[in-house]
Amino acid sequence: MSNFKLISTNDGARAGELSTSHAVIPTPVFMPVGSQATVKTLTPDEIKALYAPIILSNTYHLYLRPSIEVIEKLGGLHRFMNWNGAILTDSGGYQIFSLSALSKVNDEGVTFCSHIDGSSHFITPEKTVALQEGLGSDIAMVLDEPSPVNAPIEKVFDAMERTHRWAERCLAAHNRKEQQLFAIVQGGFDGDLRRKSAEFLGAMGFPGYALGGLSLGEPKALTWDIVRHTTQYLPHNKPRYLMGVGSPEDLIEAVNMGVDMMDCVLPTRVARNGALFTRKGRINIDNAVFREQSKPVEEDCDCFTCQNFSAAYVRHLFVARELLAYRLATIHNLRFMMRLMKDVRESIIAQTFAVFRESFWDNYQTTDEEVRLSQKQKWVEANLTKKNRLQ
Amino acid sequence: MSNFKLISTNDGARAGELSTSHAVIPTPVFMPVGSQATVKTLTPDEIKALYAPIILSNTYHLYLRPSIEVIEKLGGLHRFMNWNGAILTDSGGYQIFSLSALSKVNDEGVTFCSHIDGSSHFITPEKTVALQEGLGSDIAMVLDEPSPVNAPIEKVFDAMERTHRWAERCLAAHNRKEQQLFAIVQGGFDGDLRRKSAEFLGAMGFPGYALGGLSLGEPKALTWDIVRHTTQYLPHNKPRYLMGVGSPEDLIEAVNMGVDMMDCVLPTRVARNGALFTRKGRINIDNAVFREQSKPVEEDCDCFTCQNFSAAYVRHLFVARELLAYRLATIHNLRFMMRLMKDVRESIIAQTFAVFRESFWDNYQTTDEEVRLSQKQKWVEANLTKKNRLQ
Repeated sequence: MSNFKLISTNDGARAGELSTSHAVIPTPVFMPVGSQATVKTLTPDEIKALYAPIILSNTYHLYLRPSIEVIEKLGGLHRFMNWNGAILTDSGGYQIFSLSALSKVNDEGVTFCSHIDGSSHFITPEKTVALQEGLGSDIAMVLDEPSPVNAPIEKVFDAMERTHRWAERCLAAHNRKEQQLFAIVQGGFDGDLRRKSAEFLGAMGFPGYALGGLSLGEPKALTWDIVRHTTQYLPHNKPRYLMGVGSPEDLIEAVNMGVDMMDCVLPTRVARNGALFTRKGRINIDNAVFREQSKPVEEDCDCFTCQNFSAAYVRHLFVARELLAYRLATIHNLRFMMRLMKDVRESIIAQTFAVFRESFWDNYQTTDEEVRLSQKQKWVEANLTKKNRLQ
Repeated sequence: MSNFKLISTNDGARAGELSTSHAVIPTPVFMPVGSQATVKTLTPDEIKALYAPIILSNTYHLYLRPSIEVIEKLGGLHRFMNWNGAILTDSGGYQIFSLSALSKVNDEGVTFCSHIDGSSHFITPEKTVALQEGLGSDIAMVLDEPSPVNAPIEKVFDAMERTHRWAERCLAAHNRKEQQLFAIVQGGFDGDLRRKSAEFLGAMGFPGYALGGLSLGEPKALTWDIVRHTTQYLPHNKPRYLMGVGSPEDLIEAVNMGVDMMDCVLPTRVARNGALFTRKGRINIDNAVFREQSKPVEEDCDCFTCQNFSAAYVRHLFVARELLAYRLATIHNLRFMMRLMKDVRESIIAQTFAVFRESFWDNYQTTDEEVRLSQKQKWVEANLTKKNRLQ
């Protein structure tokens, strides 16, 4: 029986259904991120109320704290966090390469230092599978090696080849039948390598395929070139997951290129900074224009925040730095993403996605590339500082 | 028609019912504090789920931010924060004397500087009544002048006399019939002055009486001497409110001395530091003994936190500094206070309060006086630092 059913395609866009142990997931889907076994600020019932069928959690974070052993003893990740929807766990690879200090890779695996206490750890493909089996996630990811944006082509090639060997080892090590193991396509920003990687992994019969090594600071146009190019070589009847993307506008574009699954911390991270999504674009809730606004953040929004509170109250909470602010903003932004995905899916089924996309772009004022890159740069620098502290 | 009905007395302890515009409040009652129009970390539906009929909010904080005008424009405090239970607002006096820099008092009123931006403000008894009428709270408090712990008796006397004159002015200025205005007894730590103050104000026919100027750092034994002494001179048929108290053990003692209402930030503040109440005393949830505890924080607790999460998970959230931690701990501690008050009330009605109190003390391990004073000192110093920044 197949895990994935394609219900409708509309040009490149796809509407489907992904079956997992804990939920049947309508796709395209945006997955809220709960790195440390909690979608920041939210309880599981609040995630349910967003109509989010699946969340993502980070093996790297949970491995370091509270440890996979503790979570296993407490009945696995679902029970630990009291979430009965689906969970996708990443392999930890991305965090090892981006967050941890002094990561060193060889064919056997990766050595890295914890970003929390500097302690040294060694992860292999087999170990990352065992860790994710211990967590009991619905979808596990293989260990992969992404390449930095400006890596020379030989390095990108080597990392891709290693990613392929590791994918084989992960598949061989994987035992838990009710858990799906997804592969990750690498190949940097080289079209030939991306095709090679998609075809190589595609032939191995994984139940799903991710596009890794993107959204690492490269120009958006390049990201989209690679996504558009790569999806055509992936198996048609399996879900495609674009890792670490993105903003509302990114979701629209990714879906347009045949992507089925996405995740990103952006909606929740910017929420905690007071940036709230509306159909017209992002607003900054601490702006004085909202000081006396008795209407909610977005008038036709069905989220808990908009149904219960004025924009003036949400603004007050932000200005007063009250903890409730971060929750109310998170709820709004995630519900915005869920509503957007629902509308996208309905338009694909109705064969009107192109019209929907055009209308989205007509209304949505994006954060410009310059602002986006400067925000990304700040984040990268904050992480470098973390790394340097440990070195 | 009287606002307060005494249902039962058991030695000194009293069970009653206080009627307000938004709720009939079973007493004795503990009022959670929501200084800035939010009980920190909680939504109004979560406060309701605690069975908290009344919360306290601070006129001083709301006056400075977002301003009473804004709240009035948005339909008053209940509507602003979307809370349909009862609200008691203080006059701002306590915060003016404790939080703000450079407060100066004369017969007309108090000049003070905002602890937020240093701006200068002048508050009179008439103004504090107008502000609270603007907020639309169910219970308003008069402006009073507390005396520092070691003030000379002449100063304490003058502050008490001024408090009495201000009480008369507040009463004269008060228009909003559906709002009750409570008086505040002063008189420092002098038994004669406290009696004088209680009798003077008692003769004025206020619908309720607070004991102010206590819990300012004096030894606990002295606080209790003054409370025990003062309540006997207050009108029997009106609610007595002990301001700024307290811990679970304080509630038991206050009720034993005939107090009907209490409020304190302690249960929520210590919650955010990971100190959780149980029938056996406070626990520190970040303690390693909870690392793998699959049982909840307290086994027979009916709060949302204990019904849904293991102690190990709550500990993990605290160790990982996840925002959800502060909410789950707040819910537990406040529900603990509500359950405790419910049990206290039932025992008064059953005429078994003395037994209940003894059993409470047999089980409850208190934080010792030394720890308590050092914690208080830290808080006082943190506030002094705030003041000094502005001077």
